[in-house]
Amino acid sequence: MDKEFVKEVTNIEEDFAKWYTDIVLKADLADYTGTKGCIAIKPYGYAIWENIQKYTDEMFKKNGVKNVYFPVLIPEKLLQKEKEHVEGFAPEVATVTEAGGKELDEKLCIRPTSETMFCDLYSKWLKSWRDLPFVYNQWCNVLRWEKETRPFLRSREFLWQEGHTIHETKEEAEERTLQMLDIYAEVIENILAIPVLKGKKTEKEKFAGAEATYTVETLMHDGRAIQAGTSHYFGQNFTKPYDVKFQNREGKDEYPYQTSWGISTRLIGATIMAHGDNRGLKLPPKVAPIQVVVVPVMMKKEGVVEKTTEVYEKLKQEFRAEIDLRENYTPGYKFNDWELRGVPIRIELGPRDIENNVCVIVRRDTLEKETVDLEKLSEKIKETLEDIQKNMYEECKKIREERTTTAENLDEFVKNIEEKQGYIKTMWCGKEECENKIKELTGAHSRCIPFKQEKLGNKCVCCGDNASIMVVWGRQY
Amino acid sequence: MDKEFVKEVTNIEEDFAKWYTDIVLKADLADYTGTKGCIAIKPYGYAIWENIQKYTDEMFKKNGVKNVYFPVLIPEKLLQKEKEHVEGFAPEVATVTEAGGKELDEKLCIRPTSETMFCDLYSKWLKSWRDLPFVYNQWCNVLRWEKETRPFLRSREFLWQEGHTIHETKEEAEERTLQMLDIYAEVIENILAIPVLKGKKTEKEKFAGAEATYTVETLMHDGRAIQAGTSHYFGQNFTKPYDVKFQNREGKDEYPYQTSWGISTRLIGATIMAHGDNRGLKLPPKVAPIQVVVVPVMMKKEGVVEKTTEVYEKLKQEFRAEIDLRENYTPGYKFNDWELRGVPIRIELGPRDIENNVCVIVRRDTLEKETVDLEKLSEKIKETLEDIQKNMYEECKKIREERTTTAENLDEFVKNIEEKQGYIKTMWCGKEECENKIKELTGAHSRCIPFKQEKLGNKCVCCGDNASIMVVWGRQY
Repeated sequence: MDKEFVKEVTNIEEDFAKWYTDIVLKADLADYTGTKGCIAIKPYGYAIWENIQKYTDEMFKKNGVKNVYFPVLIPEKLLQKEKEHVEGFAPEVATVTEAGGKELDEKLCIRPTSETMFCDLYSKWLKSWRDLPFVYNQWCNVLRWEKETRPFLRSREFLWQEGHTIHETKEEAEERTLQMLDIYAEVIENILAIPVLKGKKTEKEKFAGAEATYTVETLMHDGRAIQAGTSHYFGQNFTKPYDVKFQNREGKDEYPYQTSWGISTRLIGATIMAHGDNRGLKLPPKVAPIQVVVVPVMMKKEGVVEKTTEVYEKLKQEFRAEIDLRENYTPGYKFNDWELRGVPIRIELGPRDIENNVCVIVRRDTLEKETVDLEKLSEKIKETLEDIQKNMYEECKKIREERTTTAENLDEFVKNIEEKQGYIKTMWCGKEECENKIKELTGAHSRCIPFKQEKLGNKCVCCGDNASIMVVWGRQY
Repeated sequence: MDKEFVKEVTNIEEDFAKWYTDIVLKADLADYTGTKGCIAIKPYGYAIWENIQKYTDEMFKKNGVKNVYFPVLIPEKLLQKEKEHVEGFAPEVATVTEAGGKELDEKLCIRPTSETMFCDLYSKWLKSWRDLPFVYNQWCNVLRWEKETRPFLRSREFLWQEGHTIHETKEEAEERTLQMLDIYAEVIENILAIPVLKGKKTEKEKFAGAEATYTVETLMHDGRAIQAGTSHYFGQNFTKPYDVKFQNREGKDEYPYQTSWGISTRLIGATIMAHGDNRGLKLPPKVAPIQVVVVPVMMKKEGVVEKTTEVYEKLKQEFRAEIDLRENYTPGYKFNDWELRGVPIRIELGPRDIENNVCVIVRRDTLEKETVDLEKLSEKIKETLEDIQKNMYEECKKIREERTTTAENLDEFVKNIEEKQGYIKTMWCGKEECENKIKELTGAHSRCIPFKQEKLGNKCVCCGDNASIMVVWGRQY
């Protein structure tokens, strides 16, 4: 039974991409739809997003962020005021040209991001330095017409939050940019149990129109990287063309300094790819929609359903719990099913357990089984959930360490990336042509210039010129 | 000072529509944008929506509703499968015809509602009666290309939740339809403090494609009605054309029975219009983003700012509290400002109060002032908030009662609606031509056939034919 079931999911070492799609579909997270490139997020997948949202939104509010909602449609002309920005996004924009049965006088773009709309409104509202800062955020959908799509990771429509702030001074804006990056790091490390690499994007990889882009980078099970969240500092790049200005303390007109920052449903994809294994999904307890599932064994024996229900009812008060009383399935099938769906703890309860006032608890992360006194169950689960959360983070960190190498020249670089994928740390001269060459040769992009710099010699891995910057590289999703 | 300030808002009895717009803009709830017919919901307005959402979503989850997210874009062909539905919505649909710089092969419609997308996916997922029911909901944006718009009440884009369910039996679906209507009634009465009238829409007024539409109707300050929430029973009207079917308990193919239900940001508009007065917005405590504001008097006197801050810090633990330490404004301005913004309780604290260890609390609903011992402040505020919530509901109910009349013939109908606006109760023969005639003559639509029927004679108010149905009529927003 076990074997048959596991067969349904592609082996993770053989074809990671296919394994990923299998998990998305079979763990009931999402499905394809009649709208090409757009997915339907199903209840189990959406509940993960709700947990991420809840935690993140609380941290936002503690840090002075206020939520708003601005229009999904942006007049084409408004989108086009900042040159770099429009060049970056124009190829991905979807456009409404007809409405109410008539052709529109002016085309309306579906937001790919909302810097332009926020600037337009800020220009209307901002008068004096006393009004600043504006620290607004919206949870919403956006559209980017991607050519190749993959559920959660690269979908034409996705859900995200986009924060847009303006400030009186450069320093305050830069501080906000990094403050939000820290919040993302905490969400991803603490809730999703994925260690992050914090740093600054190179000029080539930064956001269209930004002065600087900061990133939290994560490494997946197969050694590919995912950019999990970004925070941008714009300086006055947008506030000038959009004519956002204020009267400063000296009574003069000045353009404020701007930031934006976002995380998206892509984090669900990262969670799947960072933690999963051949048994399926593996969810960190803090984000798992179901933390504990109770499965009866020999359901038809007298008292089993009753006792299982009693245990479930009690656990439900404290944990996100579920009970599996499906009649047409064997316990073996159910065990596999809940493992596939990544539930952190499974509880098995049969007639003999009931006689002895115990149950068996099974951890999804290590698959370890343990018999636990029913009196002590609640406490045991609490401890175990904490331990799983910690252990998953550590496991993920270990994989990242194993997959992180250094390279002094291109031969080493190529050898490392072929052998281990993962992160490759090198020195870099700062020239975009070296970045381009590395990409062509290896498929790796610069992930970031880490905040924690290491001195790995003084020569660029590509051209051999003098280099003082340490860059981390990797292939990406 | 007071007088000058109040002048800024249009008199509510003179021009209710303009009063409404003034409140929306001046209480900082929303603003117009460069996208015609679409508003920007500002932090203060959005916080009201978050409170409505939180309460409603909790009730949904208690009642077995699961959240999902489905695509905003619906292929044109998919939208067109149900005849009545497409006729009802086609004139309001916005269409994407270009994306990624190219013309699309197939036009994509921005969802005006998602019955069609849900049916398409349900047809893919549903196999057996064991899978039923599907009780899914999404919180999202929708677009309807309205010709005349008004902030919150009728915006081209708005936020809402749309629940879509399918069931094994007609009875179960009908039960779900009414269950959700009850939840809406509770949200609107208990949280927004607006009494509702529950009933069934006439054939003419029901949702395009529905078998039956149920509604919770509310009456505004000026006597016009707002449809605050609707719940639809579809029978198999959609499941048949969309080929949603399941194997029933007898092993035969059958089409499930469907419902949908929604409330939207329109509720913010209803809250403004139901409760506001010449001083501005009046928010029920349960939905108010700020429940208590603390305003210092004679801020520059020693110890005032410190004591005000101390009181605020303490209140913040228990209530949604705010402190107003703005330097450039007089206390009088601040009092007016917080009244305009509808904060339920204001606390005034000056040097003499501090000496006596008291403060003054002012209720927004009655404008009553009371001196309260600082030791007992927290308890007093708790009681007062409860009392305000209750009182606002009662006030609103009183206005509704005053504005509700009965009519036996068209002359009475016309007289009543000219004098009182409001609800007019009449008997009705059931013919659509009578409904049409009443609308032409008076501008009133049938609000609903109330669940609680009264016997007001036996003749139709319009044609005088035999009539056994009691209908409530009213002009609407």
